[in-house]
Amino acid sequence: MSVPYSPGLEGVVAAQTEISEVDGQNGRLIYRGGYLIHEVADRSFEEIAHLLWNGDLPSAAQLVDFNRELAGRRALNGAARAALGGLPTNADPMDALRTLLSAQGAGPGCPKPSLGDAIAATAATPTAIAAYYRHQRGQAPVEPRADLGHAANFLHMLDGREPDPGRVRYLQSYLVLLADHGLNASTFTARVVCSTGSDLWSSVVAATGALKGPAHGGAATAAMNMIERVGGADQAERFVIGVLDRHERLMGFGHRVYRTYDPRAKILRELCREANREFYDVAFRVEEVALRELLARHPERPNATNVDYYSAGVLAAAGFPKEFFATVFAASRMAGWTAHVLEYTVKDGRIIRPASQWTGPDPEKRAAVPV
Amino acid sequence: MSVPYSPGLEGVVAAQTEISEVDGQNGRLIYRGGYLIHEVADRSFEEIAHLLWNGDLPSAAQLVDFNRELAGRRALNGAARAALGGLPTNADPMDALRTLLSAQGAGPGCPKPSLGDAIAATAATPTAIAAYYRHQRGQAPVEPRADLGHAANFLHMLDGREPDPGRVRYLQSYLVLLADHGLNASTFTARVVCSTGSDLWSSVVAATGALKGPAHGGAATAAMNMIERVGGADQAERFVIGVLDRHERLMGFGHRVYRTYDPRAKILRELCREANREFYDVAFRVEEVALRELLARHPERPNATNVDYYSAGVLAAAGFPKEFFATVFAASRMAGWTAHVLEYTVKDGRIIRPASQWTGPDPEKRAAVPV
Repeated sequence: MSVPYSPGLEGVVAAQTEISEVDGQNGRLIYRGGYLIHEVADRSFEEIAHLLWNGDLPSAAQLVDFNRELAGRRALNGAARAALGGLPTNADPMDALRTLLSAQGAGPGCPKPSLGDAIAATAATPTAIAAYYRHQRGQAPVEPRADLGHAANFLHMLDGREPDPGRVRYLQSYLVLLADHGLNASTFTARVVCSTGSDLWSSVVAATGALKGPAHGGAATAAMNMIERVGGADQAERFVIGVLDRHERLMGFGHRVYRTYDPRAKILRELCREANREFYDVAFRVEEVALRELLARHPERPNATNVDYYSAGVLAAAGFPKEFFATVFAASRMAGWTAHVLEYTVKDGRIIRPASQWTGPDPEKRAAVPV
Repeated sequence: MSVPYSPGLEGVVAAQTEISEVDGQNGRLIYRGGYLIHEVADRSFEEIAHLLWNGDLPSAAQLVDFNRELAGRRALNGAARAALGGLPTNADPMDALRTLLSAQGAGPGCPKPSLGDAIAATAATPTAIAAYYRHQRGQAPVEPRADLGHAANFLHMLDGREPDPGRVRYLQSYLVLLADHGLNASTFTARVVCSTGSDLWSSVVAATGALKGPAHGGAATAAMNMIERVGGADQAERFVIGVLDRHERLMGFGHRVYRTYDPRAKILRELCREANREFYDVAFRVEEVALRELLARHPERPNATNVDYYSAGVLAAAGFPKEFFATVFAASRMAGWTAHVLEYTVKDGRIIRPASQWTGPDPEKRAAVPV
């Protein structure tokens, strides 16, 4: 009990990992194997999942097999379809995803997490998201197409059309960039759950619940809401100063770990300029004013733009309504969550059971027990 | 980053709380308000939930209202009923509970956790468990009865009969004793999830997944499996020595925090002697031999009997098959999980985002990126 309470566990090392590393001081994100994020940003999501799970990028032949394995596990099972049918259409898409993943993963016993489970959960996540997207709109699910890659098939299942190559590229980049990010709250959740010996599905269902929070997966939607409220690039100055003068929060700035520009945000900013000029023009001007004003008002704080800010523009350009942004985040981070679960199961395995500090009354000193 | 890695976060203070305190040195469990567990062991589950949520035991008049509120929130909604209908009958009961809670809680947006949510989740949990129990047996759910207390109605929903007062008492005691227990892994999971600003349902769904693990909620089932394998009290000596000689684990002994006899185990042992003599006679003899042998072989280790050991006999006497033990644990701990979520939301609120230590290769030193 010699370690003092650190709110939010800031600075407390809660894992040793080789899945990814956020080097906040230098603005670097390192993926498994030692790859800097910009070195693998043009890979497919499948290649990155392979890297995070197996430790290396697949050869061309390996990739063919691996793509086939993933494509073969995309369909929703009967339990997930039944759960889908009962969901109210006004449910938050993250509640729908949480429920469908839980149903899809319901099975006998408590199996030890396996690569097969990681493939199954990752493959089925876009199917669950797209099925609820259509359920909300009164449409039957579009069945997955095995001849399409993970990102292309995801878009196909939204509207049943041939996916636009530009949109596939935006989505693919997003899925690759967000696939893992050190010990964020949802990944940590997944590790705590599997530390009890629980299974992979329980771990990713839990992580989905954690990602739902506005301080985590909900941040891109909040950034989009903010950009929509600005009223054009020429209003950026007035808008930002108004927000800061009222001591409200600007969305999309600041991060627990980065002390400089998030390397993912850099890549997404360029992509956003190409993909969503309307969003970009406002967002870029807001960013300029925000960084200037934040520096002037809080020179002690590192206040670089975070990944959620330009994610919003890219996800919108890929074809997702803002209510679904967090679900696409989950579809990406599923690769990382499952990689962490596999790593924890193999390497560590000790139950995560921290201590707490009692702030209630001493039993010796309180009044008698009421009758 | 000055705090070294502590596997399992052992000894790391990850919360300040007034919900409960495990004083492992002195074998005390303190509930909110400063009550020692034996002082409130004869209360109803509803009184304990009131205590954990509100900070005080209810007056007689308050209790009437409170019971009515809980009874009014027991029914499964359409989403949960639809999900139930699709569950395979061989699914682990914890998978079923996780899915039904997720469906029951699916709704618009991301509401801030409230006492109403805590009541709703706690009230619906036995209904979900009993509904799946009957679904496995090809039977339609028994609707909850508002004129029965929480424990009595739980048993009623299993078989539709008038609940036996003895069984109600066994279940009630179990529900009271397990309702909270410091920062165990599932409670910690719930706190991490709500720390992102996520909602109460996401938090308890996640906690249910954590509780599923054999090292946590699965332990009572493992204890029952072990006692069933002994083959009678006269085989205890041979059995225990065999297990220890083969370096296998004895179920039901040892705990991260207690350094002496778990005060809940003491109460459950007495209850088990009354409720389930067949189980007790074997278990008591196994315990005698186990404590003697463990002390002789590992004198440095505190190896007192833990709560799961006699829980198994009590839960069986209350009428639950061993596959459902962890779900009853969840029905009890739901009061604690939700109390912690409410406490975290009100008092702390900082996102729980610990650090990790990179054990992978340095990007500067690895080979070139393959093409």
